Amino acid sequence: MIKVVIIGQGNVASHLVNGFNNAANIAVFQVNSRQLDTIPDANVIIISVSDDAISTIANHLKDSDTLIAHTSGTVAMDNINSKRKGVFYPLQSFTKNKPIDFSTIPFCLETVIPEDLVLLEKLVSSLQAKAYKINSEQRKKLHLAAVFVNNFTNHMYQIGQEICQEHQVPFEVLFPLIDETAKKVTTTSPKDAQTGPAKRNDQQTIKNHLEQLNSQQQEIYTIITKSIQEN
Amino acid sequence: MIKVVIIGQGNVASHLVNGFNNAANIAVFQVNSRQLDTIPDANVIIISVSDDAISTIANHLKDSDTLIAHTSGTVAMDNINSKRKGVFYPLQSFTKNKPIDFSTIPFCLETVIPEDLVLLEKLVSSLQAKAYKINSEQRKKLHLAAVFVNNFTNHMYQIGQEICQEHQVPFEVLFPLIDETAKKVTTTSPKDAQTGPAKRNDQQTIKNHLEQLNSQQQEIYTIITKSIQEN
Repeated sequence: MIKVVIIGQGNVASHLVNGFNNAANIAVFQVNSRQLDTIPDANVIIISVSDDAISTIANHLKDSDTLIAHTSGTVAMDNINSKRKGVFYPLQSFTKNKPIDFSTIPFCLETVIPEDLVLLEKLVSSLQAKAYKINSEQRKKLHLAAVFVNNFTNHMYQIGQEICQEHQVPFEVLFPLIDETAKKVTTTSPKDAQTGPAKRNDQQTIKNHLEQLNSQQQEIYTIITKSIQEN
Repeated sequence: MIKVVIIGQGNVASHLVNGFNNAANIAVFQVNSRQLDTIPDANVIIISVSDDAISTIANHLKDSDTLIAHTSGTVAMDNINSKRKGVFYPLQSFTKNKPIDFSTIPFCLETVIPEDLVLLEKLVSSLQAKAYKINSEQRKKLHLAAVFVNNFTNHMYQIGQEICQEHQVPFEVLFPLIDETAKKVTTTSPKDAQTGPAKRNDQQTIKNHLEQLNSQQQEIYTIITKSIQEN
């Protein structure tokens, strides 16, 4: 039995508590960050709070002999200043109240001590999830890449939706294309999968498209078209 | 029994032939564009060739009494100059030799004569696909929106992959996030679903990110961040 304490009450903390509650051989205790003086004995303490609060909470626990890990994609492991420290970062966009299928979630793990990595890997496998050993520098890059594949992609969807709305076209017509584009990346490199007027250098279509866009959309269209053609 | 002739031998033509071959009550004949003088009798002739070639082929058939439809997302219906004309546009990115699940594919339909719309709708339902009545102007906008949600999104994936590759991080770690972002758009408007440093106006993270990018990536990052904040 591995005893896990989770500090925090946000989305990630709640989903992890649920996940561990359904896992074999894990006993999980959730505490809030004002209960730091009464933390139960555990094999791992997971700090799952906002990025800004991690080092303050970790500092309260600096004399602990227990492995202390945070769940952040952006905070370096060294913001925890106890002997046994680590990162236990589930790379997914969690939605409140929406159940998580942990088996699809990659966990980025980092520790100072190799035995602690084994411990975190056990936690990941108890959730039937997949573990990746990712150091703080790599995690920083993953987070940056995630801005492109999540936030910026989502903004492309927003512009698509706005174009549809403006012309009374149901946006849902594009859902299968959105899904197929996301699926294709798992089998074909995005560079090889690219199609469309930028890729074909179809100047007439590019010109027609630009004429239909507002100035901010034009700027985005132009710079991404250029980047597609040059990369 | 509806008799369908498909002119063309590209991806879309081949997938349609397969689809109709598996459909009840459809007899399908595929011909290539050099066989225009020997086209079998049919209820519908579907021209599925490159955009540039559509009007030339349609012109050969201008005296036909049969409904003639093309499958293009960008060519106006009026590029066909016979009496009974239409558009039969499956809005999806087709990959050669990859089987198609037609039930997930939206068909954008347009005709001059209402009875011909009913005929095209029967073809769509024989494929168990979904039909949308979309006029040429709306189709033009859909195609433009598709550039954002498909080509430009795919380019965001490419930049994400490049960032990962450069730092020896496996890109596959991001696949579940890519999938979740694509799924979320079907239930939540992309504007409401947006998260990340741009949305939070987290200047410190934005500055850190910019420092890690090359100049073209910086330009893209800056203009999309601005657009997220202003829209």
